[in-house]
Formats: sequence, structure tokens, C-alpha cells
Amino acid sequence: MLFGRVTGTAVCTLKYPGTEGLKLLIVQPLDRKLRPLGAYQVAADVVDAGIGDLCVMVRSREASLALPAVKFVPVDLALVGVVDELIVRPDEGFDFTLKRGNNRFT
Amino acid sequence: MLFGRVTGTAVCTLKYPGTEGLKLLIVQPLDRKLRPLGAYQVAADVVDAGIGDLCVMVRSREASLALPAVKFVPVDLALVGVVDELIVRPDEGFDFTLKRGNNRFT
Amino acid sequence: MLFGRVTGTAVCTLKYPGTEGLKLLIVQPLDRKLRPLGAYQVAADVVDAGIGDLCVMVRSREASLALPAVKFVPVDLALVGVVDELIVRPDEGFDFTLKRGNNRFT
Amino acid sequence: MLFGRVTGTAVCTLKYPGTEGLKLLIVQPLDRKLRPLGAYQVAADVVDAGIGDLCVMVRSREASLALPAVKFVPVDLALVGVVDELIVRPDEGFDFTLKRGNNRFT
Amino acid sequence: MLFGRVTGTAVCTLKYPGTEGLKLLIVQPLDRKLRPLGAYQVAADVVDAGIGDLCVMVRSREASLALPAVKFVPVDLALVGVVDELIVRPDEGFDFTLKRGNNRFT
Repeated sequence: MLFGRVTGTAVCTLKYPGTEGLKLLIVQPLDRKLRPLGAYQVAADVVDAGIGDLCVMVRSREASLALPAVKFVPVDLALVGVVDELIVRPDEGFDFTLKRGNNRFT
Repeated sequence: MLFGRVTGTAVCTLKYPGTEGLKLLIVQPLDRKLRPLGAYQVAADVVDAGIGDLCVMVRSREASLALPAVKFVPVDLALVGVVDELIVRPDEGFDFTLKRGNNRFT
Repeated sequence: MLFGRVTGTAVCTLKYPGTEGLKLLIVQPLDRKLRPLGAYQVAADVVDAGIGDLCVMVRSREASLALPAVKFVPVDLALVGVVDELIVRPDEGFDFTLKRGNNRFT
Repeated sequence: MLFGRVTGTAVCTLKYPGTEGLKLLIVQPLDRKLRPLGAYQVAADVVDAGIGDLCVMVRSREASLALPAVKFVPVDLALVGVVDELIVRPDEGFDFTLKRGNNRFT
Repeated sequence: MLFGRVTGTAVCTLKYPGTEGLKLLIVQPLDRKLRPLGAYQVAADVVDAGIGDLCVMVRSREASLALPAVKFVPVDLALVGVVDELIVRPDEGFDFTLKRGNNRFT
């Protein structure tokens, strides 16, 4: 899974059965120092993330497995966790806790 | 999902059952400032996109899930939404709306 | 799908049922100006491409879906179309037609 | 599979059936000289790795196959082995042994 | 598929049914001139390759399809052919033959 930051929202109506109300968000993948890295991407949001949130993203086939009901939807990136707390360690590493949420990942 | 801009069309006849009339388009992946990034790619078009359209693209296995009927077709990139409106925010992020279309994604 | 140019051939006998006579070719992925980009790759050829041909390539799981009969073969790149004609447009984009072939993609 | 070094831990509760107690770790992919390469990633840990451990990581669909019980979980990266011993050879290559563990990979 | 050169061996016991005796090797992906490109990777060896061998590698889901018996093993890279002979052509391309082996790929 990758770290990404939510930078925008998408207004569209996914008409796949079971995706009513599913939001699409624009996310910016991040590098080791959590700075922007590469192009914006569009992700399905199953954790009610908001603009500026630091998130954990799942890619490719596994992304659609994160969706609440539907398994075969053309989605290749999904947010599965919002980082609640980040504890930076002296050795440049960091630990983090994921916000308790209503989805099955946190 | 990625952002891409349609830059060309392909004339070919997909002979897979259920893909009659399905167009192939040439798309240019884009970076954070929506400028060209990397090589051209070829995508199946399920949203009637045209030259110059800014689109949302789904990659790999999930691309063929976007096709109207057929599931097992050798397609690894599909356009699933045409960006209708882009609202740039002060913090360099942007929100967008997808054009209402005839496919199941918008 | 990606654009690639055939640069070499491989002599090997694929012993998977249904792959008799299936050729492996060496292909060079191309950038926006159709110049070489990155490493050579090896692709299964289902369109009888030849050295120097500009082709459309399908990646990963979808590549094996392009094979005539067999679905579960360790192939992660397949040529699915030979570009017959390339029409460069003033805006740097181009349109192309795929050669009519005997496979299901063209 | 890739080499990565564990740099941090994640506190979250995976609520997928069969993933109770499964830890998420932050890992740093490594280059040929085992130096940091690219962004941090988040991996499911099935080998009880700890901070600083050099590990073997499996990507995408295969990552969820490494999980003890569950097959359809939105996980696209998993640690499947902890490097126990590294023997550097004169020609810059190295051999390694994986720590005997309780999972099916080692 | 990609070209890679074997640079090291891994001592570990794969405990997945059907993988007894399956070796893991360290491979170095190569660029167009067959020089090292990017990080080392770990691949399952189904062609009895040795240190220094130039090989053809299959990635992601298709890698586990190359394994003799088992289909659902967390392996995302497999060697499927050892290059026996390389014939460099004047135009920088090359042709190659794969060593006749005991696996189904060669």
C-alpha cells in the first residue's frame, strides 16, 4: 500500500450497483518525507477522507476488494485508511495509527 | 485511476464479441499540473471521448471491467470518465466534475 | 496498451498446450515521439509482427487473454496489433490504423 | 519479489475475517546496494518482522495469497521472509538465507 | 516479460504444497544494452538457472502460473527461460534462443 494526501474531490455518480454514494477523491502520492511525488491520481474513498488527509491507498485489483459491496467495478485505487497520528522516530522512520473508521480496514 | 488527455484515434476493428463499435484512443498521461508525462498509451473508450478531452483512466485488470459487455478482452487501459469542469483551488489542488455520460461510471 | 517496436526474435518452444507455433519477439517500448524508452521486453506475438513493426502491446494479466486458445500461460506481454498507417496531426498527436489481421484484435 | 527494510509500525485494526492480529508495517524499498529507493510503502506482516529487518516483499494480487487465512483482502504488499544472513560475493552479488519462520514461505 | 541476470541465491524452504525444491534466486533487471537497471529482485526459479545466467522473467500474477504444480503461491516474479544464444544484429537489436529445458516454457 502507498501513502497519499487528498488534494481534491470529484463530483460524479457511479452507477455501478452498490456504489451509490461512493466518492472519488484526487490524491497526491508522497515520497519518504511525505512530499508530493508524481502525478495526481483518482481514488475511490471508503473511509470518508477529506482534503488534506494523509491516507493509506491500495492499488490495482485489491482496490476493488476494499469497496463495501461490489467486487467487479473498474476501480484501481482505493483509500483504505486515514492516518490519525504520526510519530516520527529519531532514525527518520515513523510509526502511525489509523483513524478508527466504519470500514473493514480500520 | 489516472488523468489523461486524448491526443489521437485508432482505426481498427475489435473482433471480440461485444466490442463492436468500441473505439481505441491514444491518450497522454498527465502530471500534477496536467502537463504531458511519459509515453502515449492506447485506451478503450467507453465514454465517447474526443481529441483534447481530459479523462479519468482505469488501468490493468480493472480496465476490462469497464467494458459494456465483455469481461475477458485483452484491454489494460480504459477511459471511464470525461472531465466536464475543473475548479482549481488556491492550494494548487483542484476539484472536478465528470460529464454525465451513458456508461455506468458517470 | 503501449506502443512498442519489434527489434528481435526469440527461438524457443513454448510447450504449453495451445501455444504451438506461438512466437516470442523482443520489443522496445517507445516514448511520445516513438523513440526508444527503457529496457527491451519479450512479448508473445499473436499478430505475425516482424522486425521493425510498430505495434500495440497489452500488459500483465490481459496479455494472456490475447492468446488464441490458452488462458493460463505465464505470459505478461502480448502484441495485439501492428500499426498499418500513422497520420501525424499538427498538434503533435497522431491517429493510426491497425493492420487487418487474423487475430481477434484487428 | 522485492527487498525492503522495515522502518516503522502501524497501529490499526484490520477487521477482515481472519486478519485479527495481522500487523501493518512501513517498509522502505531498497536499491542494488540495499540503500533506500523511492517512497515508503505499507505492507502486511506475516513473518513477525521488526524495525530494521531486511525483508522479501511480494506485490499486488500475490500479496494477499501470503495471508494466513483470508484471500480477498485489500492488501497489495506483504512481507514473506526476513533475511537472516547475507553473504556478499566478490562480484557485487550476494546470497542470502531467510530466517526459519512460522509462515508457509520460510 | 523482462530480461534479467542471476546474481545470487537464496536459501529458504518454501513450505507451500508443490514448491518443495523450488529455488529462489536474486536477479538484476537489465536495460537495452543488457546492463544493470534498478534494484535487485527475487524470483522463483523453474528453469534451473545459475549465477550469471541471462534469463527471461515473467511478472506478477503470471509468475505463479509458471510454477510446476501450485497456482496460488505468493510469488510475483519467476524465471521462465535461460538465454542460450544471443545474436546481435547490426541495427542494435538482437535475436536469442532459449536453452531447451525441463519446464513447459522451453
